[in-house]
Amino acid sequence: MNLEQQFRENIKKVKAYIYVLQVISWDSNTEAPRNSFRRRGEVLSEISKEVFLLQTSPEAIKLVNELYEKIDSLDDHLQREVRKAKKSIDKIINIPQSEYLAYQRLINDSQLVWEDAKKNNDYLSFKDNLAKIFEYNKKFALYYDANANPYDTLLDDYEEGMTRKEYDLFFNALKKDLVPFVKEVLAADKKSYAKLINDKFDIKKQEVFCDYLTDVLSFNRNSGLMKKSVHPFTWNTSPEDVRFTTKYLENYVLSSIFAAIHELGHAIYEQQISTEFDDTILNGGTSMGIHESQSRFYENIVGRSYEFWETHLPKFKEIFPEQTKGIDALDMHYAVNQVEASLIRIEADELTYPLHIMLRYDIERMMINGEITVDELPQIWNDKIEEYLGIRPTNDSEGVLQDVHWSGGMIGYFPTYALGTAYSAQIFNTMKKELDVEKLIKENKIVKINEWLKEKLHKYGSSKTPKELLLMITKEEFNPKYYIEYLKEKYTKLYLTK
Amino acid sequence: MNLEQQFRENIKKVKAYIYVLQVISWDSNTEAPRNSFRRRGEVLSEISKEVFLLQTSPEAIKLVNELYEKIDSLDDHLQREVRKAKKSIDKIINIPQSEYLAYQRLINDSQLVWEDAKKNNDYLSFKDNLAKIFEYNKKFALYYDANANPYDTLLDDYEEGMTRKEYDLFFNALKKDLVPFVKEVLAADKKSYAKLINDKFDIKKQEVFCDYLTDVLSFNRNSGLMKKSVHPFTWNTSPEDVRFTTKYLENYVLSSIFAAIHELGHAIYEQQISTEFDDTILNGGTSMGIHESQSRFYENIVGRSYEFWETHLPKFKEIFPEQTKGIDALDMHYAVNQVEASLIRIEADELTYPLHIMLRYDIERMMINGEITVDELPQIWNDKIEEYLGIRPTNDSEGVLQDVHWSGGMIGYFPTYALGTAYSAQIFNTMKKELDVEKLIKENKIVKINEWLKEKLHKYGSSKTPKELLLMITKEEFNPKYYIEYLKEKYTKLYLTK
Repeated sequence: MNLEQQFRENIKKVKAYIYVLQVISWDSNTEAPRNSFRRRGEVLSEISKEVFLLQTSPEAIKLVNELYEKIDSLDDHLQREVRKAKKSIDKIINIPQSEYLAYQRLINDSQLVWEDAKKNNDYLSFKDNLAKIFEYNKKFALYYDANANPYDTLLDDYEEGMTRKEYDLFFNALKKDLVPFVKEVLAADKKSYAKLINDKFDIKKQEVFCDYLTDVLSFNRNSGLMKKSVHPFTWNTSPEDVRFTTKYLENYVLSSIFAAIHELGHAIYEQQISTEFDDTILNGGTSMGIHESQSRFYENIVGRSYEFWETHLPKFKEIFPEQTKGIDALDMHYAVNQVEASLIRIEADELTYPLHIMLRYDIERMMINGEITVDELPQIWNDKIEEYLGIRPTNDSEGVLQDVHWSGGMIGYFPTYALGTAYSAQIFNTMKKELDVEKLIKENKIVKINEWLKEKLHKYGSSKTPKELLLMITKEEFNPKYYIEYLKEKYTKLYLTK
Repeated sequence: MNLEQQFRENIKKVKAYIYVLQVISWDSNTEAPRNSFRRRGEVLSEISKEVFLLQTSPEAIKLVNELYEKIDSLDDHLQREVRKAKKSIDKIINIPQSEYLAYQRLINDSQLVWEDAKKNNDYLSFKDNLAKIFEYNKKFALYYDANANPYDTLLDDYEEGMTRKEYDLFFNALKKDLVPFVKEVLAADKKSYAKLINDKFDIKKQEVFCDYLTDVLSFNRNSGLMKKSVHPFTWNTSPEDVRFTTKYLENYVLSSIFAAIHELGHAIYEQQISTEFDDTILNGGTSMGIHESQSRFYENIVGRSYEFWETHLPKFKEIFPEQTKGIDALDMHYAVNQVEASLIRIEADELTYPLHIMLRYDIERMMINGEITVDELPQIWNDKIEEYLGIRPTNDSEGVLQDVHWSGGMIGYFPTYALGTAYSAQIFNTMKKELDVEKLIKENKIVKINEWLKEKLHKYGSSKTPKELLLMITKEEFNPKYYIEYLKEKYTKLYLTK
């Protein structure tokens, strides 16, 4: 076998293992019985060991390095695969094994420590773990590239090619333009839709409506399914098997609806990727940010549009005649676009959401660069949220302890949430020039939007970088102005126009 | 590592792969979307290749053979493991690879050929595949042991230690004693419960009742779950994760109830095996026959008893008040113990069921020993069913084409169904001396029966052979008289006593 064939064989095996890890994880997250965890843990450690070996054995590394040496002679897709493989090897190869294992243990332990700390509103008990997690992340980033700023390296882990330079421009624009605008909107008079929003909606019937939405968004049911779970997520092994979950709250029907539409956005992206990438490492969406751009596009731009509810309110009313008595599409449009200052990121509305991310970006950057310590974190958190939204947490559980990410070692992840939403506005700006989006939504032809996204973006999987895709689609580099304009236009119309 | 450690490491890996194959199969049988088959097929072939290598690589074979040479020095469990490993290696090692692959392809193809043949009532189109399947099975059995009768070798594949000698004694006893008795019962006057049995029962409500039964049989919900599928089955990866399915027919409520109880029998067996065997090849039930003895015990002896319905009819009536108006426990007892001559094995009642198996045993034995050819099969099938039950198929779809087993290469499997039921009667005979079974069922204390079976049988997993278990529990070797006595006593009381 030549180098390329060996590489292909190896990747094929790795992909088979990843497939089984995926299926086990789907099972575990949606239905596996409680006591199955012990045996599953044993098996996962056995399989993970095999995957790790396949990816980092001296032979595997040699293979990738040899291919990397003659990278220019390879075809485009293989070049990208080799670069990706090389990068993930380089990211771990210089970490001493003892540190790597110590970090794995730390992350494992921190999960429970964080859960308890959040439950008991006890930041002190989590502080030391948090400090160590930041330290390790910084150290590992420096092992990879001693000359780069470690936060840049971490940011690149979650969004290829993104550094502080670009994120600073982005968040500074938000700070300058969005923060004052949000305050204006928050201060405006608004009609309350609390009665509708928090009315009691039978969960079985919510399922019926979410199932209906699955068809509205043209999800291919032969290549996927919808289920429920504690936390909504999208899962895929190939474009022919993409599944998503939503969760149901009896007194908050919008939760299941928008979780479903959000996950459907991720799912449609995955379903529309070319199957040619299945046995390569170019399968799946290309980055966190691009993925989030798709979920947010369907959730906010499609699902929270007036046209969407003009078309689908009748179905909603058919299922929930009591709760929707006297409600029209405009009411629904307002109900799904409520704006309020809130402390919890995952409950934030479209307009205030990016400010929650901005805060986390500020803190991660300062932590990694040693400008602040874990001791100061709660205070800084509370000060910043007050600065951006005018409200202040009364305890750390609704402040610095609220998110799972840091305890899981994910530093550099948060910014992709806001970035993805900003991407979606930039892509939407191009889409509007080529498609009459409002008309398509109104005429229940979302499939046409899917097709546009498939051709422009989805089908490429990970064969293009986020930057390449954005440039190909919008003919310019990432520019936060589209996002700010989109938000200003939408929320001015909703709340600042008499 | 010494030999034993190497063996342990290898088994641990094999078991991890088998675990993932199991999870994938559960997913595929209960919910995976239609189009997932392509990618799953690719992955399964990759993983199966690994498992096959782990089990049959020269190193693995050498390891097992070296351990086998010093088998007397090993502890009991390891002895049994090595014997099992040695046997499965010996069963394939002498098969030329080309024949092995040709057989795999044949089995693969035959599935569809059989499905079409059954659908179109076209035995001719399936005949040649069937002949080849029998030929290969015979040939492979002779590769393993040229001196043994090949059908004995095949029988041993499905029930360790069983040969024609024992089965002949068993089925001859049935032929002599049961066939005339069945004719007597069939001829007796019986009240019809068709109205109750085939009434319309809402499927959601059937689910509620089956869920209730899960508790009645003391299934551990933290270590398993119930779901639905096209064909009911039980699945397990370890005693801490045992799942089963049932299927629901709106106009035949007894189908879901007794499928659930049957599978619960398998499931309770698996849940009660000691977890010490998880990383060994002694996990799981010890044989097809013993497994079936447990499912049939719960299904027939427990679930079709008068006491069972005395206790659980009130719940059934609560869920289905309309359909059960005027029905008492005795009616229910009769309804669940209807006897009639029928052509389809899987729809047969407790009393006529073994005759369907006897017919298949006769045919397999004659086919493997070259006494009949595939050309004669339909005729022989029809003659025999007429001889045993007094009815005759009008086409091959309800005759020789009805079962999936032969097209799947499973020759020697059928007899275990009847054998298992006979085991259950022999075990029940011992149990009755130590437990007041009727009282426990009536008092809804089935957990006490489970505990008895755990101590006597379940906990051993595959660490004992079927013969060892039966001898340990009942203090004698397999004896069909208990089965015949049980059936005669029960059905005489039901239908032949005024």
